[in-house]
Amino acid sequence: MAHDINLNPENGFGIDHLPLGIALGSRPNEGHVVTRIDQFVLDLAQLTDLGFDLGVDARVLCGQYLNSLMGLGHESMAILRERVGDLLVADHLDNRVISAIQPVESVRLGLPIAITNYVDFYSSLQHATNLGRLFRPNGDPLTPNWRHLPIGYHGRSSTIVVSGTQVRRPRGLRLIDDEPVFGPSTRLDIEAEVGFVIGKPSQLGTSVTTAEFFDYVAGVVLVNDWSARDIQSFESVPLGPFLGKSFLTSISAWVTPLEALARARTTPVLQNPSPTGYLVDHDPWNLALDLEIELNGSLLSHPPFASTYWTPGQQLAHQTVNGADVRVGDLFASGTVSGPAPDQFGSLIELTDAGTKSLTLGDGTHRSFLEDGDTAIIRASAPSLNGGRLCLGEVSGTVLPPT
Amino acid sequence: MAHDINLNPENGFGIDHLPLGIALGSRPNEGHVVTRIDQFVLDLAQLTDLGFDLGVDARVLCGQYLNSLMGLGHESMAILRERVGDLLVADHLDNRVISAIQPVESVRLGLPIAITNYVDFYSSLQHATNLGRLFRPNGDPLTPNWRHLPIGYHGRSSTIVVSGTQVRRPRGLRLIDDEPVFGPSTRLDIEAEVGFVIGKPSQLGTSVTTAEFFDYVAGVVLVNDWSARDIQSFESVPLGPFLGKSFLTSISAWVTPLEALARARTTPVLQNPSPTGYLVDHDPWNLALDLEIELNGSLLSHPPFASTYWTPGQQLAHQTVNGADVRVGDLFASGTVSGPAPDQFGSLIELTDAGTKSLTLGDGTHRSFLEDGDTAIIRASAPSLNGGRLCLGEVSGTVLPPT
Repeated sequence: MAHDINLNPENGFGIDHLPLGIALGSRPNEGHVVTRIDQFVLDLAQLTDLGFDLGVDARVLCGQYLNSLMGLGHESMAILRERVGDLLVADHLDNRVISAIQPVESVRLGLPIAITNYVDFYSSLQHATNLGRLFRPNGDPLTPNWRHLPIGYHGRSSTIVVSGTQVRRPRGLRLIDDEPVFGPSTRLDIEAEVGFVIGKPSQLGTSVTTAEFFDYVAGVVLVNDWSARDIQSFESVPLGPFLGKSFLTSISAWVTPLEALARARTTPVLQNPSPTGYLVDHDPWNLALDLEIELNGSLLSHPPFASTYWTPGQQLAHQTVNGADVRVGDLFASGTVSGPAPDQFGSLIELTDAGTKSLTLGDGTHRSFLEDGDTAIIRASAPSLNGGRLCLGEVSGTVLPPT
Repeated sequence: MAHDINLNPENGFGIDHLPLGIALGSRPNEGHVVTRIDQFVLDLAQLTDLGFDLGVDARVLCGQYLNSLMGLGHESMAILRERVGDLLVADHLDNRVISAIQPVESVRLGLPIAITNYVDFYSSLQHATNLGRLFRPNGDPLTPNWRHLPIGYHGRSSTIVVSGTQVRRPRGLRLIDDEPVFGPSTRLDIEAEVGFVIGKPSQLGTSVTTAEFFDYVAGVVLVNDWSARDIQSFESVPLGPFLGKSFLTSISAWVTPLEALARARTTPVLQNPSPTGYLVDHDPWNLALDLEIELNGSLLSHPPFASTYWTPGQQLAHQTVNGADVRVGDLFASGTVSGPAPDQFGSLIELTDAGTKSLTLGDGTHRSFLEDGDTAIIRASAPSLNGGRLCLGEVSGTVLPPT
């Protein structure tokens, strides 16, 4: 345990942030809820063991996932955040608090949530336009439905993994000279997205409104929706993406509570035509999250989440308007975030014009799609409560060769 | 408890069947594993309480879902089936066994499995051809990929419900005179499908082969993939079906163990072109399941599952060939089963030529799509081990008006 801890509030993990994660124990199925402060991890389960009252049942702080804690709702979350914050602003940290702190490098962080439903949207106008141009060069890049509803589809829940997990290059059928041939994907891509984690269940047969967004959403993660473009393009008509996406989706280890993002709220882009009633978002949680995509240490792009067309409140209302329920731990992602400028695109297929151009990395090598050994990292920052900036937990992954 | 029980082996639930289900208790989260024999339900958890050794840890027989039991694998399942069978063929039923038996009407059956991944395939050649003709009248009804791989997509896991659950008519955006208008679906449909339940987890990054089908699949359920055709048709391009399907999917309360279907195996239809390596199915579990669709007591159709083009083994190998894992309790469904004859189609949209024709029911009323109050039931039978026939658990649902 560190006994001399100087907390630097200026690095994105100050006491106005306090993201939540799971530190894995040495035994399977063992985990503790932790938060991050500066370069350290504070074990909340250990704090309750040490006698601190964090305002929540100690049992929700032990376990493999954040679901039980998030299911308590924002009132409990606010109390927890206040009590943890109080412990950390004390002039001299209590020795017991210090004993519950470890450097972040020494902690093994797990997948923070157990996910029933995973929905991936397609809510960036620029991204949908870019892909429409590439896939349907002779028509309107946007399909006729795109401006009327947030297009989305269900993804595979079991292959959602925590940041740091390696990405095995997937195999599948893709067209070579117009013939389907089985083999490893040669067009492996990243998609920089923002994900929203459900903290309150809804009832089957009812709908959640846009105005209930804060009630139902506990927090935010970063998402890399790894995509095998060649597999995806052969399989997707008529039922949508399947194996081109389902091999892996990475999320950040840290869930940033919505509470910490209150000052990151920003006005959404104007929607034309005006959305139909259930999609009107009077109190939108559009967020000024500035994303970055880094490949092997080279900064490739700066996608601005604020440019997203459909808001997360609209995405939530849409996926439940037919009576579908949400469960605690459900994840819905924005779809690739691409801003209007070419250095704001959120995927390689966009940044390289479907692989016809290549990007030059800092080491002088070139990339159109990912090569084995490449490491992609998505980061994001946003205005924090105290007037500085917070950093969302990054999501990283390194590509392994196919088996 | 009944004290005078005559078991009739001729009604589809003989001792060569022994499907598994969950009887819900009076308290939330309380359930017992049960089997069905004739018109009765036998409580397996109660049998172990009464001192019978069923060859499995008694704890897997208590709980809300079959997952723990199914996760033990086929060897344990075979022992369990043998021991339960022995108790039921005794000349005089043991009084303790009789005390664990109740008439099926008096038992509340729950959703049998906790589902992480739900995949819906599109494996019937006739169904894909029928829908292709309706949706793309000017082109080849089959998309170019269809004969090369089993097309599929992920569905919503949380809205999978047990047979008997009512179906609230969903609302959404659908085109009226080419304008998107929000309102209740007016083209609510059924899809008769067969579902396969995973009983063994695979490892992320590896693939399951067609030859491992029996290892990985515990049993079979019937599925009604309720579909709102108007919502589906507006939303589906380019990412596939979403709200048109996600409001509800019903499955039978009974899972028929694969063991009970060994004599229902049948030769699959010839595939042309021959599938690529990982899709070759040398030991296929194509099944001679004869389905029936009944609407308000009128028999509408007899879809033959044996006519399905892609086998369940191919569906399993396909969904994991990219390294995606399966988990115990995962469900994958065949897609609508439609045979070549018009009275073998598995959905109303096919039976009524997209609503341009209507069906006359026994009460003299007509239907193109479902009306509020309608009750649809899907049944299936198959050759059983002892030379007779077994009945899969039916899947039924009644349509409620929109909220």
